Amino acid sequence: MATKTLAQWATNLNSSSLPASVKQAAIRSLYNYIGCTIGGSNHPAVTKAHDALSPFFGPSTSTLYGSKGSSQTDAQHAALLNGIASHVHDYDDTHLATIIHPTGPVASALLAYAEYKGSISGSDILCALTAGIEASCKIGLAVWPEHYDIGWHITSSTGSVGAAVGVGKLMKLSEEQMAHAIGLAAVQVVGLREMFGSDTKSFHPGRAAQSGLLAALLAEKGYTSSPQALEAKRGWANVVAGGGTPKLQQYLSELGQKWEIEANAFKPFPCGIVCHPAIDGCIQLHREIKDKGSKPEDIQKVETKVHPLVIELTSKRTPRDGLEAKFSVFHGEAVGLLYGKAGPAQYADEVVRDQSVISIRDKIDATPDKNLGADETYLTVHFADGSKLEKHIKHAVGSLEVPMSDEQLTEKFVDQAALVLGKEAQQASDAAWKIGDSEDIAKVLRTL
Amino acid sequence: MATKTLAQWATNLNSSSLPASVKQAAIRSLYNYIGCTIGGSNHPAVTKAHDALSPFFGPSTSTLYGSKGSSQTDAQHAALLNGIASHVHDYDDTHLATIIHPTGPVASALLAYAEYKGSISGSDILCALTAGIEASCKIGLAVWPEHYDIGWHITSSTGSVGAAVGVGKLMKLSEEQMAHAIGLAAVQVVGLREMFGSDTKSFHPGRAAQSGLLAALLAEKGYTSSPQALEAKRGWANVVAGGGTPKLQQYLSELGQKWEIEANAFKPFPCGIVCHPAIDGCIQLHREIKDKGSKPEDIQKVETKVHPLVIELTSKRTPRDGLEAKFSVFHGEAVGLLYGKAGPAQYADEVVRDQSVISIRDKIDATPDKNLGADETYLTVHFADGSKLEKHIKHAVGSLEVPMSDEQLTEKFVDQAALVLGKEAQQASDAAWKIGDSEDIAKVLRTL
Repeated sequence: MATKTLAQWATNLNSSSLPASVKQAAIRSLYNYIGCTIGGSNHPAVTKAHDALSPFFGPSTSTLYGSKGSSQTDAQHAALLNGIASHVHDYDDTHLATIIHPTGPVASALLAYAEYKGSISGSDILCALTAGIEASCKIGLAVWPEHYDIGWHITSSTGSVGAAVGVGKLMKLSEEQMAHAIGLAAVQVVGLREMFGSDTKSFHPGRAAQSGLLAALLAEKGYTSSPQALEAKRGWANVVAGGGTPKLQQYLSELGQKWEIEANAFKPFPCGIVCHPAIDGCIQLHREIKDKGSKPEDIQKVETKVHPLVIELTSKRTPRDGLEAKFSVFHGEAVGLLYGKAGPAQYADEVVRDQSVISIRDKIDATPDKNLGADETYLTVHFADGSKLEKHIKHAVGSLEVPMSDEQLTEKFVDQAALVLGKEAQQASDAAWKIGDSEDIAKVLRTL
Repeated sequence: MATKTLAQWATNLNSSSLPASVKQAAIRSLYNYIGCTIGGSNHPAVTKAHDALSPFFGPSTSTLYGSKGSSQTDAQHAALLNGIASHVHDYDDTHLATIIHPTGPVASALLAYAEYKGSISGSDILCALTAGIEASCKIGLAVWPEHYDIGWHITSSTGSVGAAVGVGKLMKLSEEQMAHAIGLAAVQVVGLREMFGSDTKSFHPGRAAQSGLLAALLAEKGYTSSPQALEAKRGWANVVAGGGTPKLQQYLSELGQKWEIEANAFKPFPCGIVCHPAIDGCIQLHREIKDKGSKPEDIQKVETKVHPLVIELTSKRTPRDGLEAKFSVFHGEAVGLLYGKAGPAQYADEVVRDQSVISIRDKIDATPDKNLGADETYLTVHFADGSKLEKHIKHAVGSLEVPMSDEQLTEKFVDQAALVLGKEAQQASDAAWKIGDSEDIAKVLRTL
């Protein structure tokens, strides 16, 4: 029944019936995805994959976002390569209840397909993206946490189904074809947690995007799978959740009532989420230091009280490069205080080694307090003249309680896109915000 | 250690050190694969997939065996489509200890790649095929039977690793690159048993071939995965075998000592393996009936004693078409007695409905005997003149005890290829037997 429930719901969903808040969440998810994909597009993992696969490229129809020069390939390879780029900096979105990064697999597939197909509107894209994200997250909830504990990378292992549903919407598949597409996607289970730390981590959402697209393409031509692909005894959920008792029907029956895309969060800083509260506080303090007429150089000491996990995961005192800095709450606080920013540019190797950053970093201390919430922090900045500033962060920016504003999302987009596109980053951002209004999104995508 | 053990062994394997019996097994596996792939090439599952994907084809370098007219596509799509064709009639090979059909995923990937690359010799192909089949079967043994019981289609879920190892051999990957290729293949776990009975079953080995090829292509360009991909706590074996205690290192340490390819068996008849002994007996009786001067029409009654599973799985008394006939031991026996053959042509719908076949079929009886071996049968044919013939089959043809002879393999090849290629089937068979001797296999493959 679960496969049928999902297929039926997805087939019947239409953009005019989407609640405004859902549509807004889809616009923000898509916008954030494009920024992250442009930002990741020149990462070595992407260029190695591009080099490996270019001898096999089919007709160029679909844009590789952020690439300069020859920037198109066939839809299947575009889905793969954009999917890798979207995740490669670990800077994409997070459905916090499942830690799925939902937009990468779905959007990479459906944008690549839309550009190939042509004449697909922005509102169709938002509807298809919503359908795909709901599919991934609902089946993810059904197998959480057993599935993740076993060792699957849940973003990609649910993402192929989401991508198939999204592309299937654009194809206007019948309910029966949609069920076959879901089945074809469900047999392609991609992603092991063992790969975290290697190029293969970002391969996962790319391959999930490509697998879901492939599933929908085959189903469109009448290729058959099982109508009980998700719920059967030897179907997806039982197999990937270790034969547990997945809550598939329960979660799928909430489709259209409780929207998972509204619970999708965006990372403000390109580093481990546990140190986000401290960085958030330091960025706020940067402004307050200026307001009180002081300078960051006047700081004598910074005391930070944090959740114990922050110390456990991100207490690297003397990071040597940008990668190590991602695991240093001290670096994050230092650039927050000094620049009022902690974007990708503030994690560049030369910034990590900059003497003015190091000199503030060395004045920062952090102590664990198990009474604090996971995204809570207390900061006290002592100045040479004896004055001090205090800051309490109850929930960090980027949490569901304090979501990033559209302005903050724009800053995130432009900051990372600028490292790839230079001055054209702002233009790309403007275009990306407007995709939902476009009558033919292919025209917009080609400009990215 | 397991991933390194496999990568090291595969990297060091060379064709001159293969035992003659192993080389012979590789020749037979490859030959049987080509016959099955040609035989399956015009199946609707293959043509639907071809139609769905042709808009995305890259440069035509690699042959789709058995296709008429435009018969090439890019290597990745050739791996997929030939892989589907190889399995679509359930007539391919079987590594009986794991019920893996090992050649489909490996050969589909490495032949497609070899033709793209050019200047690859037949002896390199045999060595790469052997490496890939050993890889699939050894890791399959390590997770058997838990993995299959959970619901994975073990042919494809091990096949991507075998394909990556096979292609990696042709690329002459370093040991480190080979380990990364194994990891990249191991994260692409394809195939659920729930799909048996639908087109997606044959999609599985096709996608495994394509996934393994992709893994090797990426690893060749320096894409990284985990060097403990197979054995880590959250690596392949633990994740896909339900967290059991897989015997990876044990089986992989036997690489090169115990050759799994030598335990690869070939189906003589395109139907459920349980009724093979009875069919085998009837084909032998066909000759003996002639020798004694009788005709099949003189038969009054046929008594068959079979293992109980035969009755359970294949006791359809009045099959209406070729598909139902696969589940009728009575049809299999009837065509064996009447024609001395039970190839794909004898499972055509018109043969199943032929009155002379039906008239013999209705004289056949089968009774279960739990004291018989799984591939054992006793047959008694009673004639109108009161005479009788008896036959005891201890092990059916196609078993490890009574392997198919090269002549029988040739008959199987030509019979199924003739349904696609007509008179050119014999020529294709001659070419396929000689692939191992070729200096550039691309030249041979293009003639198939």
